[in-house]
Amino acid sequence: MNWDQEITAAAARIAPYIRRTPVVELRDIGLDYPVLAKLEQMQHTGSFKARGAFNTLLSLPVPVAGVVAASGGNHGAAVAFAAQRLGHPAHIFVPEFAGPAKIALIRSTGANLTVLPGAYANALTAAQAYEAETGAMQIHAYDAAPTLAGQGTVMSEWEEQGLDADTILIAVGGGGLIGGALAWLAGRRKVVAVEPRLAPTLHAALKTGPETLVDVSGIAANALGARKIGQLCYDLAKVQNVQSVLVEDEAITAAQHLLWYKARQLVEPAGATALAALLSGAYRPAAGEKVAVLVCGANIAPDPFAA
Amino acid sequence: MNWDQEITAAAARIAPYIRRTPVVELRDIGLDYPVLAKLEQMQHTGSFKARGAFNTLLSLPVPVAGVVAASGGNHGAAVAFAAQRLGHPAHIFVPEFAGPAKIALIRSTGANLTVLPGAYANALTAAQAYEAETGAMQIHAYDAAPTLAGQGTVMSEWEEQGLDADTILIAVGGGGLIGGALAWLAGRRKVVAVEPRLAPTLHAALKTGPETLVDVSGIAANALGARKIGQLCYDLAKVQNVQSVLVEDEAITAAQHLLWYKARQLVEPAGATALAALLSGAYRPAAGEKVAVLVCGANIAPDPFAA
Repeated sequence: MNWDQEITAAAARIAPYIRRTPVVELRDIGLDYPVLAKLEQMQHTGSFKARGAFNTLLSLPVPVAGVVAASGGNHGAAVAFAAQRLGHPAHIFVPEFAGPAKIALIRSTGANLTVLPGAYANALTAAQAYEAETGAMQIHAYDAAPTLAGQGTVMSEWEEQGLDADTILIAVGGGGLIGGALAWLAGRRKVVAVEPRLAPTLHAALKTGPETLVDVSGIAANALGARKIGQLCYDLAKVQNVQSVLVEDEAITAAQHLLWYKARQLVEPAGATALAALLSGAYRPAAGEKVAVLVCGANIAPDPFAA
Repeated sequence: MNWDQEITAAAARIAPYIRRTPVVELRDIGLDYPVLAKLEQMQHTGSFKARGAFNTLLSLPVPVAGVVAASGGNHGAAVAFAAQRLGHPAHIFVPEFAGPAKIALIRSTGANLTVLPGAYANALTAAQAYEAETGAMQIHAYDAAPTLAGQGTVMSEWEEQGLDADTILIAVGGGGLIGGALAWLAGRRKVVAVEPRLAPTLHAALKTGPETLVDVSGIAANALGARKIGQLCYDLAKVQNVQSVLVEDEAITAAQHLLWYKARQLVEPAGATALAALLSGAYRPAAGEKVAVLVCGANIAPDPFAA
């Protein structure tokens, strides 16, 4: 795969549909060094996922039956939004633990939505059955090249915006976002993978192999709770020898609070997970090392205007 | 007053202490034209007020007794924060209607705080008595040159960031922010003053003179509820023949909702007031006119993490 070419093409393809998200330098947030942050939670549907969804729909032929996706919420919302915008039908399957904000967001796009009890696997099974039955196109949440290339545009965009950082910390669920970043950067900058200790998917895979299944729980589970890392991400992370760190849920909550109280950015747990690695000391930059965090999602539940 | 020189000097003076706030282009938010937004609500203490507070404290000799301010909340928080950062004592007087989030924010700085029942005028009277008694320096919330020059740095910074807009919409309380913008722009771009219909301070003054006292109420009153426009702002607005528009509280709420649901920015009513003028049609840009809104405050009550 020529990722450089794929991501460059994706960026041009999705440019009319996605938001160029802003970047801010945060000093005076209680760390003794500045932190750059890209506010990708301002993307359409509140997470980076819209990039991969648009790239997929714009680069593959979409059948009349439309698209189908299984999701903890953010990917489903992005697929539903992109499908609506481009005039395709969509059917999204989510587990109940996606939560009210993400479920309402998907409903607001007009997509068909099925909410299932139990694990994410139930939603995925139902989505696969729907795919087989209708011929709809399944859009994988992270382990597909068009998805990963779309997410890679976060990093190409950030470099276009003049990214001045040695090291970028990125939260990991199934590996679409960090995989896209690794594919784009190709070792030119250090990438640190940050996961909740209660959803250590990449961390475990790097130790015991790509087929490792982990148990997932905790406050970020609906966004970062893939049980198995994507193969594309695994291969990139292994080759680039990515540093992987874990954070406690308490550190994630502290990072959410900090983003609100010090910078008035309200994000979901996954969106604060990268910063949590700095706050908790799970990652400690060397003297003079310039660090950046990707703020990746804001679909907090309940949303602040929920009745 | 050579405002160009004053604001340029202010920008250099406060640069180490303030946050360079990001800018984003919002398309697909339900208007048929894009809107540029500067996210100044990400400034320290959640509003632009930190700029004027730092400029005042850094440009005037501060007595041993420190500083005193009367405020609906945001100015008090900014003065308290700047005083703490620069090592001066501060005493802030606020009316109860400043609300729990702003009161907690002021307390968190370690400043002395007096909360008074009734109108803002009660807080101002108490602050003036404190000034007379202790010799502390009173920092006016809007009608003082160092305050206005500090707020003017929002616009000089935005132009440095490559502002590409014909027209900038700005919410008006006492006139510090818009006054600073008018002082900097000196007619080079169109500025539209936006006020709640329930707090039409500048609007009334432009009709019936600078001494006009208005009744203020509504959801933005603790931020935009000055009863009399600042003289500095009035003079600038009169000379530049500023267009003044009014918005209903319902439009302000709708703009708050839009900023959250379409861009994941949670702001207080005053912070959404400029955008409300576009949503409601109180201001309708001409074909091809490029518009920008200043998002100026996010100290919403209760704050999203309040117990």
